[in-house]
Amino acid sequence: MAARPVGLPTADDWSLTEAPIPQPGEGELLVRVLYVSLDPAMRSWISGGNPYASVEVGDVMLAPGVGRVLASRHPSFAPGDHVTGQFKVQTHAVSDGVGVTAVDPAVAPLPVYLGTLGFTGMTAYFGMVDVGRPQAGQTVAVSGAAGATGMVAGQIAKILGCRVVGIAGGPDKCRFLVDELGFDAAIDYRNEKVAKALRTHCPDGVDVFFDNVGGEILDAVLTRLARNARVVICGAVSQYNNDGPMRGPANYMALVSTHASMQGFFIANYADRYPEAMAALGGWLAEGRLKTREDVVEGIERFPEALLQLYTGGNTGKLVLQVGDD
Amino acid sequence: MAARPVGLPTADDWSLTEAPIPQPGEGELLVRVLYVSLDPAMRSWISGGNPYASVEVGDVMLAPGVGRVLASRHPSFAPGDHVTGQFKVQTHAVSDGVGVTAVDPAVAPLPVYLGTLGFTGMTAYFGMVDVGRPQAGQTVAVSGAAGATGMVAGQIAKILGCRVVGIAGGPDKCRFLVDELGFDAAIDYRNEKVAKALRTHCPDGVDVFFDNVGGEILDAVLTRLARNARVVICGAVSQYNNDGPMRGPANYMALVSTHASMQGFFIANYADRYPEAMAALGGWLAEGRLKTREDVVEGIERFPEALLQLYTGGNTGKLVLQVGDD
Repeated sequence: MAARPVGLPTADDWSLTEAPIPQPGEGELLVRVLYVSLDPAMRSWISGGNPYASVEVGDVMLAPGVGRVLASRHPSFAPGDHVTGQFKVQTHAVSDGVGVTAVDPAVAPLPVYLGTLGFTGMTAYFGMVDVGRPQAGQTVAVSGAAGATGMVAGQIAKILGCRVVGIAGGPDKCRFLVDELGFDAAIDYRNEKVAKALRTHCPDGVDVFFDNVGGEILDAVLTRLARNARVVICGAVSQYNNDGPMRGPANYMALVSTHASMQGFFIANYADRYPEAMAALGGWLAEGRLKTREDVVEGIERFPEALLQLYTGGNTGKLVLQVGDD
Repeated sequence: MAARPVGLPTADDWSLTEAPIPQPGEGELLVRVLYVSLDPAMRSWISGGNPYASVEVGDVMLAPGVGRVLASRHPSFAPGDHVTGQFKVQTHAVSDGVGVTAVDPAVAPLPVYLGTLGFTGMTAYFGMVDVGRPQAGQTVAVSGAAGATGMVAGQIAKILGCRVVGIAGGPDKCRFLVDELGFDAAIDYRNEKVAKALRTHCPDGVDVFFDNVGGEILDAVLTRLARNARVVICGAVSQYNNDGPMRGPANYMALVSTHASMQGFFIANYADRYPEAMAALGGWLAEGRLKTREDVVEGIERFPEALLQLYTGGNTGKLVLQVGDD
């Protein structure tokens, strides 16, 4: 990171530098990074001050990745193993093995381990299953529904027997939701009034809203909550690049008249249940009940433009940057 | 109501009119109204469009009251009985008995039945006990703490074994909270920075926040939540007289990093548990563990100025308007 971004990060905020490939020390492994995960939360990492992940000017940008072990002096990993971990935005990474997990490319293509079978999928899983807790027959709405987390969250609600309405930007994404993922309906927020469309598609109101975007869409859905509704706060991607303060949900008092709740969740709190989530997601994927989609941008030099897609609605499905060939 | 108020209601929005005292028909009772409840929620009633209580220009203003039965053709009530019900802002009311309950002035002074032993007290009870659910030893913060609901909510948290910090405007209210009600600390938001004071008084963060005010204070408390905190949304009195849209909580994404929830509640949903609340409140009051305070304004003609006190922080305790003598 060459400069701390103000508002939307620009190409000038980044620089691509070269350095000799490091060698692993005792207890370390060297990974050839193949795919890098791009996540909306990166905006908070590069703002500084995020207690969980903070990037300073001059640092290599943080990012989960998936790659192949080139050399290892770590007892758990051998050359040729495929692994996922915090490898940053670089072609080669040395790691002490903390947070590194082996993955099997025969089970799913490598980019899937950064999305549906990674933290993205587990975020959707715990957000929907544990926080949203929809019951069969209820109506679930998902914003950012064609994004990496939203597409999984909505499909989980379908698997749980719910009526699912996705909110996404543009007709292509809406078709993807309904035709490919089996959502019951999709609302194109760029061409429709969300509150009005919700009245059509959710005549009895929204029982569970899984929100990835915040802003106007959150405010619109708040006006259409069913009694005892639950609003799951997963993200607020519409607000991450504000120069000024976040926009809070002006309609939050709708929680009172509908006896509803708005709940945030922090994925690391579920660490002891990660195996449960992975087993469920892997099983549904294998059965074909859960579909996945990755949007792969090739070339580490395209990181700056690829990152912007997350904030301008450019990607459909999980956005990953390919930085090497297996 | 002479005109629909814009922003803070003014004297011109009201007129005091006279009419013959009506006589009760079959199944009705005539009540001499003695005290009228003044509640922050009145602002939404006079805005129109509130599905639960809406006042149109030319209507007598809605308000719960307590009074004495003058004449009755209703089987459940006899002249001389003291009763509470929706009697509006007037000296005499005819009622069909729906929502009318007998009260005993020997148990508590009549104004208490509009506050601590009325919907105000039950709102505090269910909001704290059922929604907030603080555990003994946890830290509870209450805004509007010297108001009718806040003072009861905070004392209930004390009874439940919590450390309780009240937020109120001005040194007199803060002294009232600590010296008379036994709060552990009070923050004077007019003379202190709330977020900074919370750091002092709640070093481990706020486990339960009972919010009556919204706006800046809600945003400040959101920055000090403990993990798994619960924010109980009871009111947003700082926002009710906005000309423009409500101000939503800009810091609501703090719910994510703290795994916290924000929950609204609607008192009518608890109708089947009203007896439980009344028994608890009445018992604590009788034992002296729950203290009550009423702020009585005399004279029906003072309704317009009395109402404003709710929005300018004028009252301490439950604000009632005395419109008759027993």
